[in-house]
Amino acid sequence: MTTKKIKFGIIGASGRLGSEVASVMNEAGHELVFQYDIDGEKISGEPELLIDCSLPIVFEKTLIYQKEYKTPLIVATTALSDQQIGSLKEISKKHAVVQSYNYSTGIQVLLKLTKIAFETLRDWDVEITETHHRFKKDKPSGTAKMIQEIVKEKNVNVSSLRLGNVAGDHTISFGGLGEVLSITHSATSRRTFAEGIQRSAEFIRNKKNGFYSFTDVIFGK
Amino acid sequence: MTTKKIKFGIIGASGRLGSEVASVMNEAGHELVFQYDIDGEKISGEPELLIDCSLPIVFEKTLIYQKEYKTPLIVATTALSDQQIGSLKEISKKHAVVQSYNYSTGIQVLLKLTKIAFETLRDWDVEITETHHRFKKDKPSGTAKMIQEIVKEKNVNVSSLRLGNVAGDHTISFGGLGEVLSITHSATSRRTFAEGIQRSAEFIRNKKNGFYSFTDVIFGK
Amino acid sequence: MTTKKIKFGIIGASGRLGSEVASVMNEAGHELVFQYDIDGEKISGEPELLIDCSLPIVFEKTLIYQKEYKTPLIVATTALSDQQIGSLKEISKKHAVVQSYNYSTGIQVLLKLTKIAFETLRDWDVEITETHHRFKKDKPSGTAKMIQEIVKEKNVNVSSLRLGNVAGDHTISFGGLGEVLSITHSATSRRTFAEGIQRSAEFIRNKKNGFYSFTDVIFGK
Amino acid sequence: MTTKKIKFGIIGASGRLGSEVASVMNEAGHELVFQYDIDGEKISGEPELLIDCSLPIVFEKTLIYQKEYKTPLIVATTALSDQQIGSLKEISKKHAVVQSYNYSTGIQVLLKLTKIAFETLRDWDVEITETHHRFKKDKPSGTAKMIQEIVKEKNVNVSSLRLGNVAGDHTISFGGLGEVLSITHSATSRRTFAEGIQRSAEFIRNKKNGFYSFTDVIFGK
Repeated sequence: MTTKKIKFGIIGASGRLGSEVASVMNEAGHELVFQYDIDGEKISGEPELLIDCSLPIVFEKTLIYQKEYKTPLIVATTALSDQQIGSLKEISKKHAVVQSYNYSTGIQVLLKLTKIAFETLRDWDVEITETHHRFKKDKPSGTAKMIQEIVKEKNVNVSSLRLGNVAGDHTISFGGLGEVLSITHSATSRRTFAEGIQRSAEFIRNKKNGFYSFTDVIFGK
Repeated sequence: MTTKKIKFGIIGASGRLGSEVASVMNEAGHELVFQYDIDGEKISGEPELLIDCSLPIVFEKTLIYQKEYKTPLIVATTALSDQQIGSLKEISKKHAVVQSYNYSTGIQVLLKLTKIAFETLRDWDVEITETHHRFKKDKPSGTAKMIQEIVKEKNVNVSSLRLGNVAGDHTISFGGLGEVLSITHSATSRRTFAEGIQRSAEFIRNKKNGFYSFTDVIFGK
Repeated sequence: MTTKKIKFGIIGASGRLGSEVASVMNEAGHELVFQYDIDGEKISGEPELLIDCSLPIVFEKTLIYQKEYKTPLIVATTALSDQQIGSLKEISKKHAVVQSYNYSTGIQVLLKLTKIAFETLRDWDVEITETHHRFKKDKPSGTAKMIQEIVKEKNVNVSSLRLGNVAGDHTISFGGLGEVLSITHSATSRRTFAEGIQRSAEFIRNKKNGFYSFTDVIFGK
Repeated sequence: MTTKKIKFGIIGASGRLGSEVASVMNEAGHELVFQYDIDGEKISGEPELLIDCSLPIVFEKTLIYQKEYKTPLIVATTALSDQQIGSLKEISKKHAVVQSYNYSTGIQVLLKLTKIAFETLRDWDVEITETHHRFKKDKPSGTAKMIQEIVKEKNVNVSSLRLGNVAGDHTISFGGLGEVLSITHSATSRRTFAEGIQRSAEFIRNKKNGFYSFTDVIFGK
């Protein structure tokens, strides 16, 4: 049996998420051979897989590197434009792509529960709130947008809070006359997301092509 | 078409829940013709349906009245013994019985979501908390026991809080390494339960016999 | 000793809060002799005290009645304009006035705690959220504005949620790097506010004049 | 002026808290010259200050080292016995000692707010809950005991939850008829505690002697 080690690269390697991913992948026996961030490139080998942990403004760079190395791609950048998502779908015809605004297992469960609750409680009010660290620039969070999408026929607002260095809390509440039902997810460390990315990496490494969400990674497509 | 009015009786008519049920049923056009509580009986007609909103110690009285009037029975009493549940099952061979520790729609959804979350998050920790008004005597609440039942292989503890006149809050939390997922239900008024009992009454009035839960009333059996 | 009964009037008598106030005052032995609401006037005596539980658009009526009866005045209307507050201050030169956007004891304590926390945690982030029933029109709630006022140098946003028939929840959160401190108040019934208004009525009935907040009623001026 | 660098030692250096303290103190320019943990001693110099981040069963070792090095002492161990606290008070006659079950600033504010709320809401119900990672052995947490101490005349229970790797949440709730007031503290990273210990170290380094709490470090004695 051949070794399972993946030689991988990170775009946005020195950021909060990028450095956590590097460390989790490293602990799992994979090898970081390519880095790109604000200080430029750092290359020690040819990556078999690329992970984008950067910002939408760097996205063009990600496309260039993917074109160069022709690898599967994992995208964790939030707040992508429709056009940027379009580029990913184009790539996915020839290479496997995983794209998600949130790589935690718990969020996947929250999305599933939200769907079920919404079906039963059609005439209840719905509210979404999200809390993140003060350094998070985009509002609402990509995850909140995924929740919003499920209940889109209700045109639900998202309340966005920015507090200290909170890793990420999301709540969806349903309110009827006489009762409130809420589902809340709290990330207690950024490591959760890095582990989800590792799981995605191991999931797509041998896939030929296709556009996958993290839901597909967890529950199958 | 004959009138849909139900002539009904309440055991525990003057209690918190009993008086709310009387008022909700009355608003819905039904007629209270039989009451039993600490002050004795008050009878103005023959009930077609009996609703028990009392305490386990009064339960023998409920059995006697049901035997006398031979009606369908709704039981909202919490903390029943196995033997008392047994008596209800016996009755249900000949008459329709609805028995639940919680008559709110939101709680039914919480139970369903709990089941799904538990299946996906098998190796996460589980905790249950319930908060009720200071006058609630039994601990844990009947609803908390229903939640506990779903995750019974984990032997989960229930933390019971007693505060002011809180109508009833229940939370189940799942904790993984790096994330917590919680589902919370808050009753904002006791009216919710009374409306669930009304819905149950209209559900079983024409049923021949059978033992139903409030889940059956909401989602069908 | 003379009787302590107050003959009082309510502007907005048939509304949610107005009818609760009528019932609480009645239980305390006071007598409702004047009512004004959408159906017009209902007068059975001369009020010694007026309570405004209506909406800002009815406020002119309140001023007219107060001028007519020359009584102390309690104002529970939210979302008053600066000019309307000005009119109340003018009245308070000759008659006692209590004005507050929230008549619950717990909210008074929340305001006090907020002040203390804010002094110690000057460089932490601050967020305010409020949740009310779907029928509440003004955003943010008057109470949220009172909390906002305490931390005004921070220019804090208020997230407003509208859910079912929630009586009223308010949370202020302080976020530092590594920790979050939150203070939450939940009204579990509208009766709380009615009891605060009763307490205010008994507080100002014998006051000559002056402009009082509910904080003054609870902690003294 | 001489350098402010402190040569310090840690008992329990390889534990969760110990290693975080080592890293925070190091970043602040202090020098770790002494370590004791499950693998034995590691000594590269003479400590001017000792920090105990271990468990009650190791406490005798801490006493021995303090006696040997004659330094100020910071104790972060939870669940100490009355006798162990007695030993610390004995030491504090000759050396400065800081002892606390929780070294976060937010918790100090929570304790202060709890005191004020309790004074105003004497006849309300009180409940305390604490949530920690599944590896925490003692129940209730030392911090919960500090909160309990403030409201001790009420004989308040603590509900202890163990979930995933939650760093530490504490809530105290006051419940009146019609309202609930809660104060919640969430540690979002263990670093908070390490920074509080660093602050304590810089606070006692030049104190002659005395027994200090972390409250004294924050608000002065």
